[in-house]
Amino acid sequence: MDTKKLIDLAMKNKSADLVFKNAKVVNVFSHEIINADVAIHDGIIVGVGNYDGAENIDLQGKFIVPGLIDSHVHIESSMVSPTEFAKAIVPRGTTTIIADPHEIANVCGLDGIEYMLKCSENLPLDVYLMLPSCVPATSFENSGAILKANDLEKFINHPRILGLGEMMNYPGVIYKDEEVINKIELAHKNNKFIDGHGPNMKNEELNAYVISGVGTEHECSNVDEMIERLRLGMYIMIREGSAARNLETLVRGVNNFNYQRCLFCTDDKHPEDILNKGHIDNNIRLSIKNGIDPISAIQMATINAATCYNLKNIGAIAPGYYADILIVDDLKEFNVEKVYKKGMLVGENKKPLFKSNDVDNSKVINTINILDIKKENLSIKLKDDIVNVIRLLPHNLVTEKVTRKVDLENNEFKYNDKLDILKLVVLERHKNTKNIGLGLVENFKLKNGAIASTIAHDSHNIIVVGDNDEDILNAIGEVENIGGGIAISSQNKILDSLPLIIGGLMSDKDIEYVNSKLNNMLSIAYDKLNVSKEIDPFMTLSFLALPVIPQIKLTDKGLFDVVKFDFIKI
Amino acid sequence: MDTKKLIDLAMKNKSADLVFKNAKVVNVFSHEIINADVAIHDGIIVGVGNYDGAENIDLQGKFIVPGLIDSHVHIESSMVSPTEFAKAIVPRGTTTIIADPHEIANVCGLDGIEYMLKCSENLPLDVYLMLPSCVPATSFENSGAILKANDLEKFINHPRILGLGEMMNYPGVIYKDEEVINKIELAHKNNKFIDGHGPNMKNEELNAYVISGVGTEHECSNVDEMIERLRLGMYIMIREGSAARNLETLVRGVNNFNYQRCLFCTDDKHPEDILNKGHIDNNIRLSIKNGIDPISAIQMATINAATCYNLKNIGAIAPGYYADILIVDDLKEFNVEKVYKKGMLVGENKKPLFKSNDVDNSKVINTINILDIKKENLSIKLKDDIVNVIRLLPHNLVTEKVTRKVDLENNEFKYNDKLDILKLVVLERHKNTKNIGLGLVENFKLKNGAIASTIAHDSHNIIVVGDNDEDILNAIGEVENIGGGIAISSQNKILDSLPLIIGGLMSDKDIEYVNSKLNNMLSIAYDKLNVSKEIDPFMTLSFLALPVIPQIKLTDKGLFDVVKFDFIKI
Repeated sequence: MDTKKLIDLAMKNKSADLVFKNAKVVNVFSHEIINADVAIHDGIIVGVGNYDGAENIDLQGKFIVPGLIDSHVHIESSMVSPTEFAKAIVPRGTTTIIADPHEIANVCGLDGIEYMLKCSENLPLDVYLMLPSCVPATSFENSGAILKANDLEKFINHPRILGLGEMMNYPGVIYKDEEVINKIELAHKNNKFIDGHGPNMKNEELNAYVISGVGTEHECSNVDEMIERLRLGMYIMIREGSAARNLETLVRGVNNFNYQRCLFCTDDKHPEDILNKGHIDNNIRLSIKNGIDPISAIQMATINAATCYNLKNIGAIAPGYYADILIVDDLKEFNVEKVYKKGMLVGENKKPLFKSNDVDNSKVINTINILDIKKENLSIKLKDDIVNVIRLLPHNLVTEKVTRKVDLENNEFKYNDKLDILKLVVLERHKNTKNIGLGLVENFKLKNGAIASTIAHDSHNIIVVGDNDEDILNAIGEVENIGGGIAISSQNKILDSLPLIIGGLMSDKDIEYVNSKLNNMLSIAYDKLNVSKEIDPFMTLSFLALPVIPQIKLTDKGLFDVVKFDFIKI
Repeated sequence: MDTKKLIDLAMKNKSADLVFKNAKVVNVFSHEIINADVAIHDGIIVGVGNYDGAENIDLQGKFIVPGLIDSHVHIESSMVSPTEFAKAIVPRGTTTIIADPHEIANVCGLDGIEYMLKCSENLPLDVYLMLPSCVPATSFENSGAILKANDLEKFINHPRILGLGEMMNYPGVIYKDEEVINKIELAHKNNKFIDGHGPNMKNEELNAYVISGVGTEHECSNVDEMIERLRLGMYIMIREGSAARNLETLVRGVNNFNYQRCLFCTDDKHPEDILNKGHIDNNIRLSIKNGIDPISAIQMATINAATCYNLKNIGAIAPGYYADILIVDDLKEFNVEKVYKKGMLVGENKKPLFKSNDVDNSKVINTINILDIKKENLSIKLKDDIVNVIRLLPHNLVTEKVTRKVDLENNEFKYNDKLDILKLVVLERHKNTKNIGLGLVENFKLKNGAIASTIAHDSHNIIVVGDNDEDILNAIGEVENIGGGIAISSQNKILDSLPLIIGGLMSDKDIEYVNSKLNNMLSIAYDKLNVSKEIDPFMTLSFLALPVIPQIKLTDKGLFDVVKFDFIKI
């Protein structure tokens, strides 16, 4: 809209399209609740005060809150496409996200980033992206793509790219890895942001990480870590996701003088948690329950993130701001009744009022590229019956390295019903390299079958667990057939499978479908395959190939001892 | 410095040039005092924590505070050049200013702006400029230049130009004056800031002003005005200058939840006040005396201004920030002992440790361009002996319009010793147009002489007051001879004069010289010319030609009734 028209609307020379009358406006600048009307025209707030419009909606004292901002999220963790993700989170109040598409980038490289950009155009959700800084995450695995600074340069000045995504390779920063420094300098040269991911760093290492230009941190797991980072000038993202939930711990360190440097994020949130708990609205509710006053919590979810990323005209209810507006009837319960995006009603009672958009996904489907895998590929040759086994711990991504005695037959591992020791297989699935990592795992407790998945952080090869080679092969065959996803096989029959056709990571269906499918498959895993109820089989599998979480993991290159930081034999 | 070197220094792989040991660091992010060492190299803070350097300075528990920021200042009001201004304010703790050169621009146009840019290069003071938005200030006077959007475009992308300076023509905004809108849109198009100056606006007018893009306000004179603006998203500059002092009033409206939207400024500060009271350090001291806690006051003077104007790497003591550092031994007294700019000691005990820089001023001198003015030019023809007179009020820029009976001779005003009614003359001095405005003034009380000055807001024509035409002509002759400035004549003899060769506004001498000269001339005015002690004669003269302050003023175009908003006859 041009300046003159905006002035006319604010001056009441022209009537605005829509006015919310009798609102209690949450003012994130003055930290107050103000009784006022809010006038909106062509998606912009054109006046706060006394206004009448072409249409007037009497809010009868309900609250108007700025649309919420998730300052760090991997859309892929929702297992649905950006458009379906928007349908899930927008009705819960999130109108802007800053997403790091590093999962799809590990599978599809730049095509993955381009797909996420395309797929997030014209949504009633502003989707900003950070360019994945660590693809692949480590050199101990084969991913679908390698992204160097030169590759990222292609996108660095895209209007919705804010900078370089979480710099997980913090040792690479402080030890000045050439490629890491190139990426950092690419961001600097283009005046872009760099997000952090540097747990456990302190003192001079943390100073070095900050001076390299890393400006945010979402990995704080205690107040000391948070305060040390905040003091050095980092913005702190208080995370409440599915696997990592730091909010209740961290809000203990938030006070009236530092909350303006704190933001909210979800990082990774699974379908069930989004549907049942909510999204950033959940961070707000939980903060309030833990003693943060509602206006401060709303500031963390809105203006603070906008300030951190220098996003103009979002995060507040004021003239010139986009009309990203939530109607809430009680600030403490924070039940989002209606969501307006740029003045359009796009969500009501947690239901989206907009349709999915149709995007060409041809470059991010058919990502399962494997040879015909045969039983002999799964054979574990052993010289000794005393072996290293990955021991799962209840509800924990950390594993234990233990030694166990197993049965051998012709110097080959032999399944034994009486021992809870299963085969774990990680099969390179991007480039048909035949690379296959084999290991053994206990405490999964699965019987009579196998579970395969193409979600295996961060390289997203095929990971399979099973108590017999036939079901392992059958499950692999099924995830290949469905174009990536999760499959359960028992007695050579597929009991159920969830296609995740976008990169083997995301469904093209809606989140309710994915959630109900996952719940069904979870029941099958627990009830029919006897999987231990102390673990979530799909989440557990998805982290068993990530060679940065202690103590022992399996990649397509073999068994990896994270403590020794080297491969070991079984 | 390159990223790798910064990392090496932070990691202690290399020693920093300089480390302050045992400092109490004022942390503007966490609102705390932290005991730490601060390491500096090549002008950048490379670590905060435990460091040793090539040189170590033990601060023995003294405070380290970030360099202060004046968010809105007219350098010209100090009556010295930018380089001399820097010598005055840097030792008092100000290391960054955002200046609006609108006085010199009214005299010299773009040449004036260019001079201010040139003259502020390579100083130990970061000088950012806002492009003057209102040159001339009104159409009721003749200035030395007219700056339209097209003219401003030349400088809009200069790296030290942050945007459009205070938009004093707020009626022009809300009534959509074409040229005003052009300037605003020039700022928008180039993603630049717009500063405000909109006293007394409220409700829809204020909404319109804000929606046009105006983001700051320094003209609040009461808490209500401040809060209404803050709520609409404006940053509030709390001003403590010479003529306008709003701090003690406004800090009553500052609280722990809104101070982050408040900045400090001086706007206009005269030599004596800078030397005796200080600069932004004075805003801090006065805030603390009025109940603001010291860390909050320091935040208002540092990080808040940096955030408002998106100035990276200043305003805090943290890795990667410029080493703009003050050493202060007591936070409440806030006595700035030492000032480091980018790691260099540049001020100590209020004395500058750097030299003036030499800048070509050829385009901003010789700005007095007048005809040979004769006695007959000063003749006030009257048809009636009842006339409109400008009545001065004690210590006030507002005047009163009164009618008085005066003596006539041949239908011409005749001085009368017994009446305190003096001639006031405003003579266009830029373009030799012969334009001369004549008026009468009471309560100046001057006897036996005349005072002339080339500081006369905002067009800076020559303004003279006197009780006889000979001294008026003599004083005009002297300001012409000295190339602009202030002169006092009595009995056809120049008692003293202060050359202000730069645009007739600023001296090329240091501030101490200007101040002592002014003090001397003030004594002469009071003691020898009997000027009323209820007014400051030079400041009074400087505002008598400004046709926006009620009730009655004189420009080179004639006597102006500010209430009627039109010219009137004497």
